[in-house]
Amino acid sequence: MGNNLLTRDPIPWPEGEGLIAVFFKVKDREEVLEILGGFQPLGEESISLEKAFGRVLSKDVLSPEDLPGFRRSSVDGYAVRAKDTFGSSESLPVFLEIAGEIGMGEVPGVRAGEGQAVKISTGGMLPEGADGVVMVEYCHHLDERTIEVSKAISPEENVIQPDDDFRKGSRVLPKGHPLRPQDLGVLAGLGFSRVDVYRRPKVGIISTGDEVLPVDSKPLPGQVRDINSYTLSGFCEQMGAVPIMMGLCKDRFESLRERVERGLESTDTLWLSGGSSVGTRDLTLKVFESFPGMELLVHGISISPGKPTIIARIGDKALFGLPGHTASAMVVAEVFLAPFLARLSGERPQEGTPYHEIEAELSRNIESASGREEYVRVKLIGKGEGGLIAEPLFGKSGLISTLVEADGLLRVEKNREGLYQGETVNVMFFQQKRGGTL
Amino acid sequence: MGNNLLTRDPIPWPEGEGLIAVFFKVKDREEVLEILGGFQPLGEESISLEKAFGRVLSKDVLSPEDLPGFRRSSVDGYAVRAKDTFGSSESLPVFLEIAGEIGMGEVPGVRAGEGQAVKISTGGMLPEGADGVVMVEYCHHLDERTIEVSKAISPEENVIQPDDDFRKGSRVLPKGHPLRPQDLGVLAGLGFSRVDVYRRPKVGIISTGDEVLPVDSKPLPGQVRDINSYTLSGFCEQMGAVPIMMGLCKDRFESLRERVERGLESTDTLWLSGGSSVGTRDLTLKVFESFPGMELLVHGISISPGKPTIIARIGDKALFGLPGHTASAMVVAEVFLAPFLARLSGERPQEGTPYHEIEAELSRNIESASGREEYVRVKLIGKGEGGLIAEPLFGKSGLISTLVEADGLLRVEKNREGLYQGETVNVMFFQQKRGGTL
Repeated sequence: MGNNLLTRDPIPWPEGEGLIAVFFKVKDREEVLEILGGFQPLGEESISLEKAFGRVLSKDVLSPEDLPGFRRSSVDGYAVRAKDTFGSSESLPVFLEIAGEIGMGEVPGVRAGEGQAVKISTGGMLPEGADGVVMVEYCHHLDERTIEVSKAISPEENVIQPDDDFRKGSRVLPKGHPLRPQDLGVLAGLGFSRVDVYRRPKVGIISTGDEVLPVDSKPLPGQVRDINSYTLSGFCEQMGAVPIMMGLCKDRFESLRERVERGLESTDTLWLSGGSSVGTRDLTLKVFESFPGMELLVHGISISPGKPTIIARIGDKALFGLPGHTASAMVVAEVFLAPFLARLSGERPQEGTPYHEIEAELSRNIESASGREEYVRVKLIGKGEGGLIAEPLFGKSGLISTLVEADGLLRVEKNREGLYQGETVNVMFFQQKRGGTL
Repeated sequence: MGNNLLTRDPIPWPEGEGLIAVFFKVKDREEVLEILGGFQPLGEESISLEKAFGRVLSKDVLSPEDLPGFRRSSVDGYAVRAKDTFGSSESLPVFLEIAGEIGMGEVPGVRAGEGQAVKISTGGMLPEGADGVVMVEYCHHLDERTIEVSKAISPEENVIQPDDDFRKGSRVLPKGHPLRPQDLGVLAGLGFSRVDVYRRPKVGIISTGDEVLPVDSKPLPGQVRDINSYTLSGFCEQMGAVPIMMGLCKDRFESLRERVERGLESTDTLWLSGGSSVGTRDLTLKVFESFPGMELLVHGISISPGKPTIIARIGDKALFGLPGHTASAMVVAEVFLAPFLARLSGERPQEGTPYHEIEAELSRNIESASGREEYVRVKLIGKGEGGLIAEPLFGKSGLISTLVEADGLLRVEKNREGLYQGETVNVMFFQQKRGGTL
């Protein structure tokens, strides 16, 4: 690249990335994910069931008892001895004597003897003697004491056995499972008013850069407001982590070091997002290096955007130096910080395709000659017949408006020189809410 | 259905559903969704940006200023007059005089005159005179005052214009948009420290049924613990609503009426989930009917499970009588309460396929001769080559264990008699967290 015999700097720019960094090889996605897999889930805590939605179990949950624990009717009808109904049909009904009725929540005071029927509601406890329930649709009152049954049932028909839902000692939910609404219900059904879960990760967020101002200030030309703190904070909430906004920090070693030191004391992981200049990135690295025992894990990732990412370990905590451009920081967040937070949260790997990817048809060719894995922002547009079209959004690097327009990210693998119009692609989508709208 | 000349009850059972109910036709899904669409979004509130993740904008957000508001470099390099670089190449570089350097966040103190270059970082403000930035990779220092430029740039290359991201007055985000991480960032960038959003729906949840006990109690035979309050509460949280657990209520008119009255005063919508018996359902309806101006909107939905669902309107509030079986209540929640909450939250309809559906291949035939729309619980299993298999989970009605095993629901349309093994189906999946795991 030209004659540099007279060049004063052996590495033109970035200049002072420190000796460690100079010899560091840029890593690819798989390597970085493997490195992040070296961090361990956080400690456990016991919380009340009402607060447990979305939390991750830190222990297997075993059933402390049989559920439902008694023989229950699964329909409204009459509890009978099944053999009393054998052979009955619409044209040849059998007649049974009504022996009584079972109130909800009660132990039956009556029993179903031979030729007898006991009125029972869904969920009611089966009376002694009965081994099945005839649905009300097949029963007709003849008089106050007699019903006509027009259908034969088999033994145990419409009966839930005491351990049909869970047998005492069986595993109800596995360690590492994030609690969904129905899981809370099952835990309530088994009598767990408290539950053991992993702690939620506390994420310290620091924005750096001399040009960055607080949201409520009026920037002068050359200055911008802090975008990344809010973006990363929202991202943490989306992932079930606890964001701790540690504010802005100017590009000065002492103040940044002091801020990082404070963050290491009070949070589980620290995310610095640089002003976008090389100078800020260098400073971040110097600050990390100033902590004894610091281990530089990643210095550069072969993805675009997102390359200038630094990951270090101090003690048992991961520190991230993220790109200053919000769009680049978001790519790093989606690709690496999401699974990293899941890891800290103790979430177990799930089978199958990651659920946050969705298939779509690409609307135009995408070129990618970078030799790096590329992430392209896309807008998803519904096709008339169902299915989605992914429309790539291109724009100058450093813009945030395309990020607002985008519904997700599309990955172009390293070994592909591009993607073709009409190809089916997987989109990592940003949407956080479930359920449709009216 | 048999000889019922002697039958004392003209409608065998359910008996006392009230006069209104008797003449009510069961409605199908589309009709119910249309009815729910008649409810209006809740009022607005102004909240601080830090608390705004997931909230829904109640107004269009217009840009109060140009963003970034000044001409910015999108790379690290040298700001120059583009025409000074015309014709330059690796073999024939041009030489430019270094006129100075621009600090981050500063208004440049130097200008780029003819034949001059000013060192600039990513995000730095362009100096007067310059109309482009040469990336650092194409610049070499010859001495302290001179660089060699080995690439021609065009005017405005690597420059972000003052209104490239947003032009003053342009729409940044539309009313009805749920705020994602990057949206918070953009709002911060534009100086919004507060934001106008719709109120989160407050959902009153009441469990009814004589057989239902609190979670921390020890049920006797015939009794069960309250499962639905916890399931529905978790569901509300998942949807961004505020669950208010109003506790258990015995099957007595006065106490249930009092509870509903209290709920109407303090919440935006009331969800009662019955014990599973017909008696409880009747009571719910009677209580609803006792409020002046009550309008019964839905009495029965032609879906399975979930048929015995009641929807009423009292004032401007919707009251739901949900099935007692948790699995049935969950189907109603996924199909109707999710879009209803989105409606109350002011969320605008989204284009394209609902994002919470995912394609999978059906593992076996499903029969469905009911003539109703059916919802089958399925487990999703990853295929080796990518893609998912949907494995239907069958089990007795009233079990909750299959709900824990399930990853989602599969809809069998009313006009289908079943689905075939190998068919591609859409699964409404339960998963709430995004991002993979390590």
